[in-house]
Amino acid sequence: MSRTRRRANRNNNHRKPHSSFFDIPYRPIVRNQWAPYEIAGPDRIAEIHDKSMQILENTGMRFMDEEAIDLWEKAGAKVDHKRQHVWPDRGLIEELVAKAPSSFTFRARNPKRSRLIGENSINFFSAAGTVFANDLDRGRRPGVQEDWVKLAKIAQMTNVIHIGPLQTVVLHDVPVHAKHLEMFLMASTILDKPHMGVSHGYVIPSDVIEMAKIVHGEDLKPELGPVTGGVVNVNSPLSYDDRMLGGMISFGRAGQFIVVTPFILAGAMSPVTMAAAIAQQNAEALAGIALIQLVRPGAPVIYGGFTTNVDLKSGAPAFGTPEGAWAFFIGAQLARRYGLPYRGSGSLNTSNVPDGQAMSESMWSLWPVVMSHTNLVFHAAGWLESGLTFSYEKFIMDCENLAMVEHMLAGPEWSDDAYSLESIDEIGTAGHHFGTAHTQARYQTAFYPNFLHDRRNNGTWLEGGGEDTAQRANRLWKEVLKAYEKPPIDSNMEQALQEYVTRRTKELENVALYD
Amino acid sequence: MSRTRRRANRNNNHRKPHSSFFDIPYRPIVRNQWAPYEIAGPDRIAEIHDKSMQILENTGMRFMDEEAIDLWEKAGAKVDHKRQHVWPDRGLIEELVAKAPSSFTFRARNPKRSRLIGENSINFFSAAGTVFANDLDRGRRPGVQEDWVKLAKIAQMTNVIHIGPLQTVVLHDVPVHAKHLEMFLMASTILDKPHMGVSHGYVIPSDVIEMAKIVHGEDLKPELGPVTGGVVNVNSPLSYDDRMLGGMISFGRAGQFIVVTPFILAGAMSPVTMAAAIAQQNAEALAGIALIQLVRPGAPVIYGGFTTNVDLKSGAPAFGTPEGAWAFFIGAQLARRYGLPYRGSGSLNTSNVPDGQAMSESMWSLWPVVMSHTNLVFHAAGWLESGLTFSYEKFIMDCENLAMVEHMLAGPEWSDDAYSLESIDEIGTAGHHFGTAHTQARYQTAFYPNFLHDRRNNGTWLEGGGEDTAQRANRLWKEVLKAYEKPPIDSNMEQALQEYVTRRTKELENVALYD
Repeated sequence: MSRTRRRANRNNNHRKPHSSFFDIPYRPIVRNQWAPYEIAGPDRIAEIHDKSMQILENTGMRFMDEEAIDLWEKAGAKVDHKRQHVWPDRGLIEELVAKAPSSFTFRARNPKRSRLIGENSINFFSAAGTVFANDLDRGRRPGVQEDWVKLAKIAQMTNVIHIGPLQTVVLHDVPVHAKHLEMFLMASTILDKPHMGVSHGYVIPSDVIEMAKIVHGEDLKPELGPVTGGVVNVNSPLSYDDRMLGGMISFGRAGQFIVVTPFILAGAMSPVTMAAAIAQQNAEALAGIALIQLVRPGAPVIYGGFTTNVDLKSGAPAFGTPEGAWAFFIGAQLARRYGLPYRGSGSLNTSNVPDGQAMSESMWSLWPVVMSHTNLVFHAAGWLESGLTFSYEKFIMDCENLAMVEHMLAGPEWSDDAYSLESIDEIGTAGHHFGTAHTQARYQTAFYPNFLHDRRNNGTWLEGGGEDTAQRANRLWKEVLKAYEKPPIDSNMEQALQEYVTRRTKELENVALYD
Repeated sequence: MSRTRRRANRNNNHRKPHSSFFDIPYRPIVRNQWAPYEIAGPDRIAEIHDKSMQILENTGMRFMDEEAIDLWEKAGAKVDHKRQHVWPDRGLIEELVAKAPSSFTFRARNPKRSRLIGENSINFFSAAGTVFANDLDRGRRPGVQEDWVKLAKIAQMTNVIHIGPLQTVVLHDVPVHAKHLEMFLMASTILDKPHMGVSHGYVIPSDVIEMAKIVHGEDLKPELGPVTGGVVNVNSPLSYDDRMLGGMISFGRAGQFIVVTPFILAGAMSPVTMAAAIAQQNAEALAGIALIQLVRPGAPVIYGGFTTNVDLKSGAPAFGTPEGAWAFFIGAQLARRYGLPYRGSGSLNTSNVPDGQAMSESMWSLWPVVMSHTNLVFHAAGWLESGLTFSYEKFIMDCENLAMVEHMLAGPEWSDDAYSLESIDEIGTAGHHFGTAHTQARYQTAFYPNFLHDRRNNGTWLEGGGEDTAQRANRLWKEVLKAYEKPPIDSNMEQALQEYVTRRTKELENVALYD
């Protein structure tokens, strides 16, 4: 052994154990360079458009907010103030939807973390809106702030998670009126990635926007792109309530984006047939997007798809289904028809444990969203139990698939050096390529570096403890958490955020948030 | 409650427990009606073709069989008898490959079970070539005939498995010289689905063809399509040994098909770069296919892809990787360029247990093969542990995904009745669609009927025993096995097969099978 080799080995032995989790690069942009997978022809897309316009023109939609009704009326739509009902015609809808940008930059506190939303970009965002936390050590329990902090730190350290957490778990130990304040503070300080805000009612969004101003400056410069965004799950069928509309109007007015997402379980919130569910999704999404354009023409919006079926034996939601895959594929096609960025979901499943079903079903949402050119992938990691639970282990398990997706989308290297006909000729018809100069020069970086999937043979695996995937993921999330480093933040900014939260927590104590 | 309803309920209560596993239909043909997903442009495909032709023209390939060398020489290729080496030029390769049919019918004993191989059809075949059997009750052990029989019965009862087993497990309790005889007898009598034969050397294929004649008649009528087929995994790099060539020549001569499959682990059997691995795959596959066309112009063949990477930390094979996905996608594109049916693999994984990793990795092969228009999907169910093991539980877990694929590929229903604008209008902006006439008329058959994935909420699931996916699959494969019914078979045919096996088992006792 040469002296150099010995020294290298010695250094290796003294080095801290290194998981290839940390070898996965942060990619400032991930694109799907290949054509989107489309399962409906242009005539079918035109037909869905026509049916959805018929729904808006004939059945109409409810908007439970006077300002929204006024906006529609001024724009010339047929409205009924008493019933809070609107029948927008297709000309108006198309004219308004055309004002929305086809892409925008979602700006982060750290400009290097800003993300393009639109075109053929893809962005991953971990599970949001979950209630419980679950890990192998402590089991399933209501989420608390400690979980939120841990999961935010893990998200910051995870290069395939591009967008910071929203409601990772419900903060059961924080008063209702302070949850949105605490979440925005934590997301702004634990991470330097872009992150969403809460967009319910009028009070909460105004706090979100005020806090965003502390981070990004008094003029949010919406012309450079939004610095926060909110999610609105339509109250399907065909209704937006006042909480939703408050958020849409507030965020729209401030030039911050809204993900308008009909959450349709076919058979419950729409007819049982997927054609109807998809047409209704389109009607609901476009009506919301059009309203936001009435508030502020050119406001950034995202067309959201979250349509799947119910389990008709139990009435429970069914996630990771063929029906859901159709809806993801066609939803993306519809968004492209309107020139809008598209949102889907990446790890939907109904399993109670991070097992084979959990991962099979998750791949029934991840593959469709990737192949359909979904720009913003919600719930890309950690979702369990139909979204009730955030699983620490499943987060890691999903991240392996996300990292593999990013690697796949980069595509193979094509060059004479990569074809390497010389190496093929050198080895000829016998022997193997392990030892060639060509292999030796590349072997450390040639392939996707798996960090969780275990390829050891049965004997070695058993000797190593015979851990299954969830058990290995349990060790890994702790390593990742331990490696957390707080990203730099201006101390005045952090103090101002903290003071805002303290002040508003007091002020909001007796305020009804959704009035 | 009406009298009719009461009677229906009573009948339900007395009915045997019914798994929706048995509701999955047998589909005589499964097509991917949508365009194949392509990740390489036409120029890239032309470049790969050119590089692979350079490999054949400059480096050439070894064919370790005198008859093969003679065939190449007569066709005008440059050969070296002593080195058993051939340098076919691109003109000859293209001329020969063009003689192969673009599709054919793989005929079964029961004509209703025959399958189209080619066009946009997709056919699933359970894991082949595995050594061990594994189930949750008995653990991992060397396979024996009892496992083979059980797994064949389960395959016969599983409507998403279209093609019968080959070497499901190694028959460790059957003498080497009798394994091929026993397997063909079992496959021909336990199932009525089409099934493969063993294609190694000259002795074994001649037995396979003789037994096929007992089932299908003395003239196998190859013009109607093959009744058996064999797999040849090329001895990469760039070499076909005498066992492979015996099978290729024997099956080719009899008009039975060969799946010509370079089994390339990039970094071991080819350069470490995927461009090189794919070009070499193409060279090896086309050379084998061309040789079969020299034996019998128009003989059915399948272009096989089984290219993935090694794990460069351990040298172990890596399955279910982004690199493997590229190879599946591009392999299908190459097969289409030559007008050949394509073979891929559906549930590749490296896990030691049927857990999250097993299913994630499996979906990294299933989605690519489905989207790329793979006609014959080997290893679609049951593969575990890099193919060393057939897992009873994983077979069921994979079958849920296969059934979902079939359902997805059928596509949604599009009709005015399916859009059901009347129901949307009927419910309007409030209430739900559970109770509408439209839902009630469809609720039993509206969606894919999951048989394994469990959508119960946490409480109900825990009360029901809190079983994970593999545990539920364990119960299910036993139910399926118990439900087995032997398909009708002519008793003379069965007796003739049995007599052939008895006679040949004696005759082959001291015969070297591969001379």
